[in-house]
Amino acid sequence: MKKSLGPRTLAFPAPVWVVGTYGPEGQPNAMTAAWASICCSSPPCVAVSLRKATYSYGNIVARQAFTLNIPSEEHVKAADYFGMVTGKEVNKFAAARLTPVAATHVDAPFVAEFPVVLECKVIHTLEIGLHTQFIGKILDVKAEAAVLGESGFPDIEKVRPIIFGPEIRTYHGIGKYLGLAFSIGKDL
Amino acid sequence: MKKSLGPRTLAFPAPVWVVGTYGPEGQPNAMTAAWASICCSSPPCVAVSLRKATYSYGNIVARQAFTLNIPSEEHVKAADYFGMVTGKEVNKFAAARLTPVAATHVDAPFVAEFPVVLECKVIHTLEIGLHTQFIGKILDVKAEAAVLGESGFPDIEKVRPIIFGPEIRTYHGIGKYLGLAFSIGKDL
Repeated sequence: MKKSLGPRTLAFPAPVWVVGTYGPEGQPNAMTAAWASICCSSPPCVAVSLRKATYSYGNIVARQAFTLNIPSEEHVKAADYFGMVTGKEVNKFAAARLTPVAATHVDAPFVAEFPVVLECKVIHTLEIGLHTQFIGKILDVKAEAAVLGESGFPDIEKVRPIIFGPEIRTYHGIGKYLGLAFSIGKDL
Repeated sequence: MKKSLGPRTLAFPAPVWVVGTYGPEGQPNAMTAAWASICCSSPPCVAVSLRKATYSYGNIVARQAFTLNIPSEEHVKAADYFGMVTGKEVNKFAAARLTPVAATHVDAPFVAEFPVVLECKVIHTLEIGLHTQFIGKILDVKAEAAVLGESGFPDIEKVRPIIFGPEIRTYHGIGKYLGLAFSIGKDL
């Protein structure tokens, strides 16, 4: 029997992704976002929702560009920090001792030390409520050679992304392999 | 040094959520979606992207409602199956031996056996490309008492959601606890 918990943002898993943008004078900034996902296969697009009050919101509106950086487990403290302070007051890259690098396809910086980054150009902006959703067309994905698997794509067990639990405020790593998609369902 | 992989839908983690809808004659249907996330805190909203060709797409357009069901690891084969076949041809609930239950706040069914479900009313529809994004206002979250933690919210280690790796087509469980959000960043 299910218990009703009311209208809440309770859905697992949520990602822990870091949005890279430039400020008005070109200052690199990094902000953590969990209200985000791939939202289209063709063209490849990602959706990320930010509050208007954030520094990153204004940065994205001004340059219509951002990067999405995927931290590994080892970066969990930096990722949490990037969601706790504002780039209006702090140079977050310097505080976290991480390195901003200019993206090659869009006007935004990425985090050199994180294993995977998506370079995104804004193609839609949707006002929803407290959050505004930016749809970014993915112009390139870049990954460290060390996290690539035999397929040439990033191996999730090498990337070791962080899983966020909204409302309960937990971070977890990824766990055991459960099977191959579009395959194990045949054995239902 | 990062290697460029081109414009691809490569971002970890992606969720494995099952969209519950009614067909034209009220047939309950279930379809797996990974291009989905929470997208607004107030009002609480979720975004889910579907291809127009799917049975669920027409069902959502017709009733402007859907449920998002979170399967546990133990349901991974059913979740994979729900993404492989179409409700135009198959009664997926019957094939997976799972039970459709009418949601209480929206005109859609949920999966009784899955631990958490969100009942959603469509408030925006956005054409992106191959995928159309539906923004659903979350009218209620329902969870099995067995997965609730001390806070009264679902405990992610009891829910044991499935993590999808796009393009590499992997399913994983969640792993070790890494820390508390909005907290461990203070120790940076």
